[in-house]
Amino acid sequence: MQDTHISLAHGNGGRYMRELIEQVFAHHLANPLLDIEADAVPMPIPEGEIMLTTDGFTVQPLEFPGGDIGALAVHGTVNDLAVAGATPLYLTLNALIEEGLEIAQLQRVIASLARSARETGVQVVAGDTKVVPRGAGGGLYLSTSGVGVRAPGVRLSMRQIREGDAILVSGPVGDHAVAVLLAREQFGLRGNIQSDMACVLPLTRALLTFAGLRFMRDPTRGGLATVLHEICRATNLGVQLEEAAIPVNPAVRSVCDMLGYEPLYLACEGRVVAVVAPDQAQTALAAWHTLPLGNHAAIVGRVTNKVPRVTLETPIGGRRTLEELEDDPLPRIC
Amino acid sequence: MQDTHISLAHGNGGRYMRELIEQVFAHHLANPLLDIEADAVPMPIPEGEIMLTTDGFTVQPLEFPGGDIGALAVHGTVNDLAVAGATPLYLTLNALIEEGLEIAQLQRVIASLARSARETGVQVVAGDTKVVPRGAGGGLYLSTSGVGVRAPGVRLSMRQIREGDAILVSGPVGDHAVAVLLAREQFGLRGNIQSDMACVLPLTRALLTFAGLRFMRDPTRGGLATVLHEICRATNLGVQLEEAAIPVNPAVRSVCDMLGYEPLYLACEGRVVAVVAPDQAQTALAAWHTLPLGNHAAIVGRVTNKVPRVTLETPIGGRRTLEELEDDPLPRIC
Repeated sequence: MQDTHISLAHGNGGRYMRELIEQVFAHHLANPLLDIEADAVPMPIPEGEIMLTTDGFTVQPLEFPGGDIGALAVHGTVNDLAVAGATPLYLTLNALIEEGLEIAQLQRVIASLARSARETGVQVVAGDTKVVPRGAGGGLYLSTSGVGVRAPGVRLSMRQIREGDAILVSGPVGDHAVAVLLAREQFGLRGNIQSDMACVLPLTRALLTFAGLRFMRDPTRGGLATVLHEICRATNLGVQLEEAAIPVNPAVRSVCDMLGYEPLYLACEGRVVAVVAPDQAQTALAAWHTLPLGNHAAIVGRVTNKVPRVTLETPIGGRRTLEELEDDPLPRIC
Repeated sequence: MQDTHISLAHGNGGRYMRELIEQVFAHHLANPLLDIEADAVPMPIPEGEIMLTTDGFTVQPLEFPGGDIGALAVHGTVNDLAVAGATPLYLTLNALIEEGLEIAQLQRVIASLARSARETGVQVVAGDTKVVPRGAGGGLYLSTSGVGVRAPGVRLSMRQIREGDAILVSGPVGDHAVAVLLAREQFGLRGNIQSDMACVLPLTRALLTFAGLRFMRDPTRGGLATVLHEICRATNLGVQLEEAAIPVNPAVRSVCDMLGYEPLYLACEGRVVAVVAPDQAQTALAAWHTLPLGNHAAIVGRVTNKVPRVTLETPIGGRRTLEELEDDPLPRIC
């Protein structure tokens, strides 16, 4: 492949497309199951419940401090399996490429995706590539579906949440959204905020042994506040947060103050929200504190039998309701 | 949801997005496994090899004679499982929506997708929705991943192809591409050509009992010619086609003559190419002829031990080589 930029011919099913797939996708993603000649591939699955999930990725810019769309496309889907209590095994990958994308950038992103897959222990076993004309895409969109296996007996669901349960967060919120925002340059702000993007499997595995673990979720789009709204809607219970307990990096806080964002609504890509029975909350927190990814974990609130809404207690003793997110503060953040 | 068109707020993870998912996606796709509150869902799988595939869909216009992008997103992925010898069971769905899309059109497309899934016997069990700003998308892109199960012992692969094997096509080629092309209006042509889009499971099931069945593929992007090039590359054998034997609808032929397209390179979405041992070719053809989807099936050529290229014998005794597709005649056809 001599080209430096993607053309429509890279999507037509013919020679250029074959070379693109061989020299970019199969090159980085090679593994024993990936067969670019097959229409579908068989997957060996160990004992347990087979779990399926999917996610789309439209982040802009494609590369940002702490990550890129390729790594994100692995972690986003792997993390959805992890918080469901599963061990991720396989991914499918769809790439929607806009004509004109620099092939060197595509190489970097797919190499990063392959590295993240290896580090996380998943194999990309099926893929598809489409090229759309200039102006009909945003450079590169990825979507991944993930297959995992869950040990028999693991039952996690919002339906298991009870009044009095503790709400834990594994680390500071909003770093991902702010890192991507600053990478857009239009704000003229500089900072060394890195995305929190990471595989949360160590965090989820650490809690799976707790009988009092009710539910886990990674707070991506819509942030911590949106996860808590989902809990209120599903359980008809309330959530009371202690504002001072919620970990927020000072640099993220400053940017939010300057631009008028509320960090509780901002996306994370390497954090977990867990709901745990009150008598196990402290030991669950201690388990997270032993992990590099969890050493700023905190208990941030509790489930109440009040009206199903999210209430924030401020450090000076005030109380306000966190409304459900309506307008979109930050499109193309994940 | 009062809105008539998609806005960025429909993608932010908050209230508008929840309503969009409830009132469009979950509304049409409801099934016992689909859980819009879960990060990943468990899948019951019967005995056999578990098969995985994925495909992306960018067709323009979104609705065309004989189908739409929703139905196509089911059939494209289901057909990839079918030609691999599997029974499709589950789909994941990623929707990438451009701000400004008319919600009534989205409803029609997702309703059509749901109908195709029901007719084909698959369940959409996981999904994700992203909204990109106006100008950063082509209206609507879909991608689906499919999970199926294959009976133990079924082995289909290009590697099994031998010299002398017969090449069968299940029906006329190129109808899908030409139907989409004419729907674009820019050509000012009118015709009643319908896409051949269909679920090919009846065709693939009819051949799975034949011990002499080597390989099946659905000729989508790049058409029949591209499938045959893939066979030549994988086997290092040649393919000899008999031009007069290849079924092409007269209306498709006329449009191709007018616009300078070669139907052998044009996408189908409801056809199967099968390679069968020579002694079973006629009975396999007869099996297809009994099916509505296969009553124009034909034996169109054979595998040779000549140089690995695709040769076309013309009705007047000439012979020419079909080259591998290079430039893209028709972007966004599937």
